[in-house]
Amino acid sequence: MSVLKKSVLAITVSAGLMSSMVALAQPASSEKHAIYATELRQSVFKLLGSNMGPLGAMAKGKIPVNAEVVEKNAVRINQLSLMIADYTRTDTSKFSVKTEALAKIWQEGEHFAKDIDKLTLASTKLISAAKSKDEGAIKKAIGGVGKTCGGCHDHFKKD
Amino acid sequence: MSVLKKSVLAITVSAGLMSSMVALAQPASSEKHAIYATELRQSVFKLLGSNMGPLGAMAKGKIPVNAEVVEKNAVRINQLSLMIADYTRTDTSKFSVKTEALAKIWQEGEHFAKDIDKLTLASTKLISAAKSKDEGAIKKAIGGVGKTCGGCHDHFKKD
Repeated sequence: MSVLKKSVLAITVSAGLMSSMVALAQPASSEKHAIYATELRQSVFKLLGSNMGPLGAMAKGKIPVNAEVVEKNAVRINQLSLMIADYTRTDTSKFSVKTEALAKIWQEGEHFAKDIDKLTLASTKLISAAKSKDEGAIKKAIGGVGKTCGGCHDHFKKD
Repeated sequence: MSVLKKSVLAITVSAGLMSSMVALAQPASSEKHAIYATELRQSVFKLLGSNMGPLGAMAKGKIPVNAEVVEKNAVRINQLSLMIADYTRTDTSKFSVKTEALAKIWQEGEHFAKDIDKLTLASTKLISAAKSKDEGAIKKAIGGVGKTCGGCHDHFKKD
């Protein structure tokens, strides 16, 4: 079976059984599969980071707070947060892929799932804050999202 | 100014001025910036591809049609389609980055923007088809999305 086909099946199966992430964590079937899964996983986190970047700069006063941008980025962070479980399901820890993801992601699935939920919730709150256009509330809510990023990175990502 | 800061500003500025993509296409400011922009651009398209993969397999009868998976993936394709304009805004064509993106993306911005809209629309229709659970309608709508992928690739992506 080709790598692509295997991934297709993995995504399909997992997608049909959402919100039971722990049970579904599954080892990559080959190095090629692990590399592909890692690329996709990193894609999600790169996009998360690129949406978070400007928000962090706003919270720190480095650039002006722009509520429209905050709302757009918060929506994207929220959407991407809901993709993390699927895109981290494949355990690549047995293969030598270039990654900062720690094996704990697949060993402590419940903890990891809770951390994902925290990001989903914090980004939802940020969307609300952005709609309010209250700069103080926005900065506070950006901090809330940043805290969930940092909390998860501290535990599940290489220093 | 750091690459990250420049990117942050670029995303922030562009985000505040949506739906005028053509005027906003802007050259990467350095090779580092071009590499970063390319990584982010490719992240969006990798995720699009990974969502499309299972749908193509369903449309071709290689795996069973699963309306829930179709809806979830169609939603993600739709969300990602709305990110394409921002993530393709940086013109990396003057730098030797490893990419299959053709310079036409930045030379024919109006055409490219129309192709993005086609994907947004086709994925919206696929969401509706998935909700109907009508297998024929789903397969047809998957074909509609696939056509917009292929149409854009034919013109804007290396063979």
